[in-house]
Amino acid sequence: MMRVYLAGPDVFLPDPHGRAVVLKAICARHGLVGISPLDDPPDAPAHWSALPPAHRIALCNEAHIRASTALIANLTPFRGPSADVGTVFELGYMRALGRPVFGWSNAAADFTTRTLTFLTGQAKRAGDGSWCDGEDLTVEAFGCADNLMIDGAIVMSGGSLFIAEVPPTRRWTELAAFERCVAAAAAALRDFVR
Amino acid sequence: MMRVYLAGPDVFLPDPHGRAVVLKAICARHGLVGISPLDDPPDAPAHWSALPPAHRIALCNEAHIRASTALIANLTPFRGPSADVGTVFELGYMRALGRPVFGWSNAAADFTTRTLTFLTGQAKRAGDGSWCDGEDLTVEAFGCADNLMIDGAIVMSGGSLFIAEVPPTRRWTELAAFERCVAAAAAALRDFVR
Repeated sequence: MMRVYLAGPDVFLPDPHGRAVVLKAICARHGLVGISPLDDPPDAPAHWSALPPAHRIALCNEAHIRASTALIANLTPFRGPSADVGTVFELGYMRALGRPVFGWSNAAADFTTRTLTFLTGQAKRAGDGSWCDGEDLTVEAFGCADNLMIDGAIVMSGGSLFIAEVPPTRRWTELAAFERCVAAAAAALRDFVR
Repeated sequence: MMRVYLAGPDVFLPDPHGRAVVLKAICARHGLVGISPLDDPPDAPAHWSALPPAHRIALCNEAHIRASTALIANLTPFRGPSADVGTVFELGYMRALGRPVFGWSNAAADFTTRTLTFLTGQAKRAGDGSWCDGEDLTVEAFGCADNLMIDGAIVMSGGSLFIAEVPPTRRWTELAAFERCVAAAAAALRDFVR
């Protein structure tokens, strides 16, 4: 069974272990082994236990990614217009390994729209019609779901992105887009192996 | 001369090409070749020109990273408590290649403090004394400068992080922390090659 690393701010939820059980059950239903950042990594060297917790966790997550065939990222916007940066770091890490990366999000508005909403009142139009923020930094407008490195990596790696519009109160619980993403990853990985 | 990829939201500044010239001049002063995301990549295949701009730019940036010995990231917080996600994607990408990653930031407050400031009025204390946001998602509190994947990658790769406290109006112009970071990278890469 193929291992898929489940990147996302889900580890910050009130019951992160319970959440991991739910995500893994959906993966199992589609024939995949979901790997949570909270799992003990397979071969963590003993000396890692002496590291500061932040460094040990970072190395364990990197080891999990290297030991997985693909990555599925929860890209639901997190404390700002973009996805959680820890999740995006891991997406970039897996992309560099040349393996497929998938994403899902419970926010349907595109990146430009979300950024303009975030900047309420501070966004301005530049001379050429493009948008910039109150400090004159451009607002990306490529029609992407998030920064173009994220959309680019997902498409160019052979992965795919699933977006659902979910009411704000269900943003961290609704899993329909996740399940569609898992199903697509399972199908893609079957082809990958043949 | 060693090539160092300059990741950062600097590409969103009003004069990104002028900014790249300034950053490259500082690199040159320290014996490094600064590579800007705006540079033409050395060996872009002809068929990339037919891709949508977002995908072409993403592939060009990835090619630049693969062709560089190290990466220096501008981690100054960008539209929220964390660094720009495009920058962090690239940091993760270079980290997976096993090469040193460096960072600098013009915000001195640590990640927990910045997140609590961002959440003004919505942050709450959980039963165990830890902080969470209005949706009950935990606030990271490891004493890091940003998400632990970022701090972890910089330290564990042999890189280093330079932080300056800069008045808000000079956040996108002040380059003292950048220059200290370039000097450290130049020294580390000299050792790396020996």
